Parts: sequence; structure tokens; C-alpha cells
Amino acid sequence: MTEKIHPVILCGGSGTRLWPRSRIARPKPFLPLMGEQTLFEATLERCSDPAVFAPPIIVTGSAHLAHVTAQSASAAGSTIIVEPGAKNTAPAIALAARHLPADAIMLVCPSDHYIADVAAFTAAARTAGSLAADNWMVAFGIEATSPETGFGYILAGEDIPGQPGGKRIQRFVEKPDLARAQRFLDAGGYSWNGGIFAFRAGALLAELDHHRPEMAHAVERAMALAGSDIDTVHPDADAFAGIAGESIDYAVMENTARAAVVAANMGWSDIGNWEALRDARLRDAQMRDADGNVRLGPGELVACRNVMVDSDGPTVSVIGLEDVVIVVDGNDILVTTTAGAQKVGKLHGAANQ
Amino acid sequence: MTEKIHPVILCGGSGTRLWPRSRIARPKPFLPLMGEQTLFEATLERCSDPAVFAPPIIVTGSAHLAHVTAQSASAAGSTIIVEPGAKNTAPAIALAARHLPADAIMLVCPSDHYIADVAAFTAAARTAGSLAADNWMVAFGIEATSPETGFGYILAGEDIPGQPGGKRIQRFVEKPDLARAQRFLDAGGYSWNGGIFAFRAGALLAELDHHRPEMAHAVERAMALAGSDIDTVHPDADAFAGIAGESIDYAVMENTARAAVVAANMGWSDIGNWEALRDARLRDAQMRDADGNVRLGPGELVACRNVMVDSDGPTVSVIGLEDVVIVVDGNDILVTTTAGAQKVGKLHGAANQ
Repeated sequence: MTEKIHPVILCGGSGTRLWPRSRIARPKPFLPLMGEQTLFEATLERCSDPAVFAPPIIVTGSAHLAHVTAQSASAAGSTIIVEPGAKNTAPAIALAARHLPADAIMLVCPSDHYIADVAAFTAAARTAGSLAADNWMVAFGIEATSPETGFGYILAGEDIPGQPGGKRIQRFVEKPDLARAQRFLDAGGYSWNGGIFAFRAGALLAELDHHRPEMAHAVERAMALAGSDIDTVHPDADAFAGIAGESIDYAVMENTARAAVVAANMGWSDIGNWEALRDARLRDAQMRDADGNVRLGPGELVACRNVMVDSDGPTVSVIGLEDVVIVVDGNDILVTTTAGAQKVGKLHGAANQ
Repeated sequence: MTEKIHPVILCGGSGTRLWPRSRIARPKPFLPLMGEQTLFEATLERCSDPAVFAPPIIVTGSAHLAHVTAQSASAAGSTIIVEPGAKNTAPAIALAARHLPADAIMLVCPSDHYIADVAAFTAAARTAGSLAADNWMVAFGIEATSPETGFGYILAGEDIPGQPGGKRIQRFVEKPDLARAQRFLDAGGYSWNGGIFAFRAGALLAELDHHRPEMAHAVERAMALAGSDIDTVHPDADAFAGIAGESIDYAVMENTARAAVVAANMGWSDIGNWEALRDARLRDAQMRDADGNVRLGPGELVACRNVMVDSDGPTVSVIGLEDVVIVVDGNDILVTTTAGAQKVGKLHGAANQ
């Protein structure tokens, strides 16, 4: 494959599950949660090798435009498509597909995930690009390493001839309960659906036209009437407003006859809550101490294991805890067990920002 | 007994075990840890019934004089004795004894303990005063309600004829290990030594003169050379400086032939660390919630049990914890298991104030 891949970076998110660090006005993609770069910056950098990638297309809402502009300054040639409203992933991806030539290969990437192994990501992107060029609708299948109940799963089917590394998708599975997730893990063949996809732009639009004609036409109209300057596209708000929001999984992937999966073992995390962030940081030898604790900001941990402290200033001293996350952000302090991390979004502070 | 009891309030303390709320410059007695009053103010109020008590004598160091003055304004007729140095309890008590007439009955009270049942305290004080008038050296024996390893114990002996409620002290026991503390609790007859004592001033000085003649003479000299104004006494620093510091327990109580104990079941706590404060607050129905949590300051507790949050401002949100104490004070945050609370004084923040 010699054609360059067009990264399509999706920037949304509400900012409650990593409260109080993430906020509605400062959501997860724009925070430096893993190292110095923000997740968004790292996503851009991951897709910046000019031997593989064309300049990125960033799809975002007006609420995040200031963050996007500030943090994408170094991405030469990038285009920003400003969604007139939040309509889930299918319309966002279709806007980008409409913007590109029909033969362009798109790689759709969420901007709020972490990927430790960039080389593995790039290799999977090349494989997926090759399949997409052959009109496959390609999902990355993230290697399942634990019985996660927070992700959808992909069951891989038979090999695709002439496409090494590509398999047909036999089935998409909704988020399972723990017992079922464990069976998936034991059985093998199941991977996590991480929301990373590759398409040929024209092929995606044809599938959308077939399975969701109203959405396809609304997107076409919104782009035909779009205002734009040199690097920003403003799809028409009225045309876009009538769209029923839907994920690309439901709108296309589960309906197409040409769904493919590419296995990706690349140290991926969706950093979906404080436990996931703690785990991702613990896997980074430079971030953990000898007792398996992570401390960002001043403080002291005594007789602690697998504790994460993340303070924006105050000194945090911790004694005797295990599997607890402590976050200090301005006037808000969160102390939660890792098991309780999934309840963070329901806290008054997070829900009533 | 009709003679009034002279409260002798001892105000010292270093301020590390309740760090970060207590500090060297703002130690425990002067903090409102239980309700609106500080422990020192509550100690004064407990000894303020003019039918029972004479005005108090407060023994403190110059470092705490500002706190003492500010918080004792309402104690009419009080006298402050400013210790020239910290020499443990025996010299401090002897200074007060020297200041009083020989026949005065003294009730020595630490200023950093909590007593829930003031009526029980007063009743025990009357009983102890009666024994002291008969030249007994009297210790309060705090009812042992758990196998505490942090206190010395008093083993009561035979009844003292003509003194209902008074028993001879058979033995003082150093802080025991847990197994021994449990045996004491099972055996009965053992009570905690809470550092509350009653003496006739002249009798105490006679005992001190007998068992610690050098200390007795140094105190006598320090008071003979003392400077004083209407309500403050400054014992002579040079005379006081040569004293070898020692507790009243070692200097007098364990040597006298006339040691007595009065049982006191009065909801006492020494509030010796964050666990003890958590426990004292949990016993107060107005301070705990339905799940056995205590929250001072803004915040939210979800799926927590026996958690105490004590914040001076920031909002603290807690999920899923049990038996944990969280304290916010200025730029310092402490998160500790109750079992770990005894290590607080060793934290860098507490040790290097």
C-alpha cells in the first residue's frame, strides 16, 4: 500500500468520569493524563509520520474548538470540521468522508484513548488501510487482556484471502456481564471494539447511503452548504440538525456485508475512568514506585499499594491504603476505591458542573 | 465536702498526632475538635461550676500563652502560670501546688481530652476531692471499654474505709501489648490512667519533697523568685531550668503509700490520634450519619462506612471506603486508614513543621 492514510480524529466527550480533573469545559482529550502530552496531542502525533499519514481531519464541536486549535497548531495541514451539534460518531465520520476524495483511506481515531506502542498502532493502521482500499469496513480489534465489562466485543471470523492480518467480523457483541466477558477471554477470538476504524471514504458513504439514507443525505446537504476557510469547515447547522444521532457501529458496522477486523496489540487503554487511568499509569515503569503506587504532585505514601495520588498542588499524605485513587483539582478532592471509580460520574460534583 | 476544688489545667502538647489539623503553632487543646468549643475551652467550662470549683490555675508555656489568654478570657479569676520550660507534668503540677494554700484541693486536668458526661466528671471530682482532703494522692481511673495499648492502666485494690468510691491503687501498669490489654479488660479491676489527679497541695508537696527532693526544692525556689502580675505568674527560669523533667506518675503516684483511684465512667477520650477523634465523634449521634460516617466541611460520601472527612474548605467526595480518615487543612491533605492513624506523627509533613 502506498496511498497515504487520512487520520480522522474525533474530539468530543462530556468530562464526568474523570472528574474532578476532567470538567465539561476541559474534557479528557485535552488533559495531559499520560506524560507531558495531552491525549489529543498524542493522538495527532501518533498519526504524524508523513510516510504513512496525510494531514489529519479533526471533527469537533464548537465547545472544544479553542482547545483543538491550541493543541493542533503543530499538525501541519490539518483541517478542522466543526460539528453543528453532537450526533454520535456516524454523522461525524460521514462529514469527514464527504470532505475527502472518494478514494481517500480514512483512519478514524478517538482522541481520548492512550496507546503505549505506537509502532504496533502504525502496523495495524497499514493493515487496516490495505483492507479499506479493497472496500472493507475495518475495525481495530483490541487484544482483550482481561474480562472487561465496559467494552463491546468483536468476534473474528475467517481470514480474508489476499489480506494478511485481516479477518471477517463474525459478530459484534454488546457490553457483556462479567461471566460472559470471562468466557470470551477464555474462548479466544474475541477482541475489544476500541472505536478505531478504517474506511475508503466513498465506500463508507455508499454503505451509509444504503443503510442510513436519511443520514447520508443530511450529511451530504450539510457539507454542500458548508462555510469554510482555509483550514476550518462549518457544515450547515440546519441540515445537520435533523439527523438522528447514531454510532458508526450501529449505522454501518453491524449492517455491512464487508466488516473486517485487524488485531491490534498496542498497549491500548480508553482511560474510561480513574481505575483505567491508574492501571495505564501502573503499566508505565517510569510512573510507578516500587510498591505499585503512582504519585503525581507533592506528598508521601506510607504502607500503600496500588494507590494513585494525582494532585494539582496540595501535599497529599496517605497511610495504609490499597487500590485507592486520590485526586485533587482546585477546590475538589476525590477519594475513591478503584472499584468505586465507575460511580464518579454520578457524584454531585461531577453531575452538576 | 464543702471546700471548693481548684482546677489545675495543664496546657502543653506538640501537635503531630493530629496533623495536619493540629500544628506546632496551633496544638490540639486550642482546636474545636468536638463541637464549637476548643478542648481547652471545654476543659475550663467543665470546671466552672462555682458551687464546686474555685477559679482555675492554668499552667502553660510561653509558646501557647497567646492561645491560653485568648481562650480563657471568660474564666473569671483565673491564674496563668507560665512554665519557663517543658519539664513534663510533675514540675508543672508542683508549681501550681506552690501557688496555692497548703490546704487547697487541686484537680489536675489535661486540657486536650474530651469528656462527654460532665455530670459524671463532676461527681468523680467531688469524690476525688474528698479523698485528697484526707491526704490521698488520687488518680481518676477511666473505665476501660476496649483493649487499648496506648494508655497506662491502674489496678484498683481494696476499698478505703470512710471514703465511698475510693479504692487504694494496687499497681500502675505501663502501656500493655494487645494480649495483655485484653486480659486486663477481661479480668476487670483495671482502668485507664487518664492523667487526671486530685491532691491536697501541701500533701503533694510533702510527697514530692520526700520522693523527689531536688525537684521540690527547685520548684520552691522558682516560685519564691517568680515575677507576677495580677493574674500571671512567671516562675524563675534559672531555678526551673535545672529540673529533670518527669511525670507525676513516676515522681509521686508510683512511690506514695497513699495512692487512691476513683472510678470515672464519663465518655472520656484522650483524642490521641485521628482514629480516637473519629471514634469520639461517631459516639456523638449529632455528628454521625446513618452509615456511621462523620463529615465536617462540604462533600459527599457514597457507599462509605465509618469514614470521617474533616475539611477546612475544599469539597471532598468519597466512594467505597471504610474506616478511613480524610483531613484537609490548608495545603495539606491526609488520607489514612484508622489503623494507620498512629503513624501520622511520623509523616514528613508532621515531623518537619
